[in-house]
This record gives sequence, structure tokens and C-alpha cells, in this order.
Amino acid sequence: MSKGIGREFMEKTQYRYLEESDQNKGLPQPPLEVPTDSNVALINLTPVKDINVQRIDLREAIERRKSLRKYADTSLTMEELSYLLWCTQGVKQIVSRPATIRTVPSAGARHPFETYLLINNVTGLEPGLYRYIALSHQLMVVNLEAEIDDKIMKACLEQEFIKNSAVTFIWTVDMYRTGWRYGERGYRYIHLDAGHVCQNLYLSAQSIDSGVCAIAAFDDEEINSIIGLDGENHFTVYVATVGKVL
Amino acid sequence: MSKGIGREFMEKTQYRYLEESDQNKGLPQPPLEVPTDSNVALINLTPVKDINVQRIDLREAIERRKSLRKYADTSLTMEELSYLLWCTQGVKQIVSRPATIRTVPSAGARHPFETYLLINNVTGLEPGLYRYIALSHQLMVVNLEAEIDDKIMKACLEQEFIKNSAVTFIWTVDMYRTGWRYGERGYRYIHLDAGHVCQNLYLSAQSIDSGVCAIAAFDDEEINSIIGLDGENHFTVYVATVGKVL
Repeated sequence: MSKGIGREFMEKTQYRYLEESDQNKGLPQPPLEVPTDSNVALINLTPVKDINVQRIDLREAIERRKSLRKYADTSLTMEELSYLLWCTQGVKQIVSRPATIRTVPSAGARHPFETYLLINNVTGLEPGLYRYIALSHQLMVVNLEAEIDDKIMKACLEQEFIKNSAVTFIWTVDMYRTGWRYGERGYRYIHLDAGHVCQNLYLSAQSIDSGVCAIAAFDDEEINSIIGLDGENHFTVYVATVGKVL
Repeated sequence: MSKGIGREFMEKTQYRYLEESDQNKGLPQPPLEVPTDSNVALINLTPVKDINVQRIDLREAIERRKSLRKYADTSLTMEELSYLLWCTQGVKQIVSRPATIRTVPSAGARHPFETYLLINNVTGLEPGLYRYIALSHQLMVVNLEAEIDDKIMKACLEQEFIKNSAVTFIWTVDMYRTGWRYGERGYRYIHLDAGHVCQNLYLSAQSIDSGVCAIAAFDDEEINSIIGLDGENHFTVYVATVGKVL
């Protein structure tokens, strides 16, 4: 491999080349999540204390995990979806910095993600694009147009199983949450952090007889435009399909 | 944030700008792991089938996980270390492509990592730097000099708890394994994949009464030089300390 942008990125994000962070300059940090319009109706998820899923041994979950691209035509319940959202981005506590303590680790507890969901087959939810509001454990409708699944499938380079998934998770990054503290090196961290999140999805899906396939091959501009992100300050970093095991 | 190298990296690693991959050009893929000298003695780990750890519920492991930076002065056993290595990089199968199927997912099953271990307090192992040989589930001695823990602690920007950890995992990337297939976009994937690995460490450590703290703040050149990596084709991507809960 010739020396390209990847190598250049690794070199220029070494600590020795980083400028003073906005945090160190005393600039205010951005909100803990992208604010919602106060006039948008939010959908309640199953409260965390009421979620019941099968107990499953951690080691077995790790050993049995494999990527699943073919799914049964069975719905997920709201409780099951609530469980997956809780395990991947659930807010356990808000501490005074302020920062969120979640079910996943994140560099400096910056937690830069928003979770968008392409819902195809979840009982009680109209198919379409939603966003998880982690701070209140609710869902927000983003886009219910009929062709949204097609569009997202195409933006993910025609990976057909997206349309057959019960739900596809799309993790986006509000970059300044991490960049405020870590500057350009933060672009490494958002990917590391997204890996933590996706691994929890892989494991927790097994508690509800489901499988996952992670997708990092997508047309960035296209998927960001479909979701309604500017693609620069807020952009997609990782995608994963979920569906019941056949 | 001004437009810097991070943003430039994201833009130039869009699919539309990628060149034809070496895989598509028909070039041979690199070996599945960095070869070992045939005259180096390897240390057997506990065979996977003989590893016994506490059963622990997946959901509890996810909910209870937190970063731990203070450790008891208690050794890990070889069996416990074997378990952590198995859960983070264990090879379940070698398929014909050839590719490894492991306990973690990796883009295109490329599995670009080597696992280096700073051993401070593991029964039966002299303190020092080792490498996990995943294909045969063994350890290789890399460097037993007395000051290696100090050096690695300093390369990780003086994070003192590295010296107090029982073992510190250092995940390095043999870049061409992923780059052969994905070109420059592969630099995103190695970070996503490292996140999967580290999350499994966080979770599996709880089966052995231990805690973890992930570290992405290190002096790249320094840590690579200590381990003996060229820093360009093979370099450190993520670090995590492990030790018994106090």
C-alpha cells in the first residue's frame, strides 16, 4: 500500500501534533444529545425496569456470536427493541460535568452518538426512520415515507438484507461532543467507541433470538443526506441490521 | 472545530474516492498473523475446552460494566488470562479463503490485530512484554527487561494504573491485512474492529472478578518503538488495563 490519507491521518493525530482543545480553552461543551423540537411527539419505550429477556451466559454469547444476514419474517416487540437500545446507548446516570454514564464505554464519557433506526418490522411501530432519544429512553419519528428502506439500502451499496431486517441501527456522530475534548484525535475515538456499541448489539441480540450484521460500507454523503445530517458536524459512522434467527 | 485532518480523512475515505483494492487486483493476501521465528519458545495457555469461569448473565455484565483504574494486588491465573485472550481474539475456525473466524467480528473477517501483553502480575509468567499467538493459542516472549512497564506507562502519557494492572492489553494492527481488501477506508475499520475487541474485554473481565480501563491516549511513536513495530505497516491502535477488583 502506498502512503495515503489513512497513514497521514494516523500521523497527524498523534498527541504531539494536537492543538489545544476547546475544552482546555474553556469553551462550553455541546449538549449531551441533539435537542428535539418541543412540538415533536415522542413514543415511549418499555421502561428499563420492565424489560424482561432471557438470561444468557456471557461466555456463550461471545462464543456463539456470528454475523447473520438472513432473517425470519418475525416482528420484534417494543420490549425487545427497548432492550437493544438500552444495551447499546442506554443512559444509566447523568453526572455533574455534565456527562452521561451509559451501558457502553466512551472516551472521556463523551458519548458522541445518536442512534437512528430504520424500522421495518417492529410490533406497534409504523415502518420508517426514527431516532432514539437516549436521555428520556423514547423514540422520535424522523421520516415515514414509503421508500425510506429502499433509499437506505441503496446508500449502503445495495446490501439487500437491510430491507429484510426487522430493524437497522444507524449510529451517527455529533462530532463536537468528542472533538471539544480531543480535537482531531477524536476521529479515532468515535470509531473505537462505535465498535463498543456494535459489539453490545451483537451480544444482546442473542438474548432475543436475533442476529446482527455490522455494515461499514455505505455512501457517506447519500446516507447522511437521507437522514438529514450535514455530513460534516454530524455524520454516520456505523450501521447494523438486526432480525430474528430463521 | 475548524476543518482538519479528521474531516479530510472522512471525506477522502468515501467509497467514491477509493482506488481499486489489492484484493481486486489479484494480489496475494498477507498471512493471518505475523509469523513467529521457528526458534522462539512458545508458552502454552490453558486449552479453551479446559477454561472454567463463573457463569455471568450477559445483561448484568453489560449493565454493571464500568471503567476500573484501581486494582487489587492479586494475580491473574494463566487460566484467567487464557480466557480473556480467547474472548478478545480467539480463533474459532480457519476457513478456506483463508480467513479466521474469531470470537469478535471484523470487517471482511480480516482480523488485522496482534495482541501484545504487558504482564505485571500473572501466576507463572515472568513480568514483561509478550505476544498472543492466536492461531495456536500460545504466548511468545517479546521483551523481559525490568523497565518495560515504566516505558509503556510513560508512552501512555504517564497513566500510572498501567503499572498497577495485572496485565495490560496492547492491540496492534498489521495494516495490510485490512488494507489489502479495503484500501484507505480500512483505517476506519481497524478502529471499529478494535472497539469490538475491547468491549469483549470489558465484559469478559467481569467473569473473573476483574475490571478494565481502555486507553487511547498514547504517544504512537514511542509505544510502537518500545514494542518493536515500524509504526507504519504495523502500529498500536488501542490499549486496555486489566486487574482484580479491590
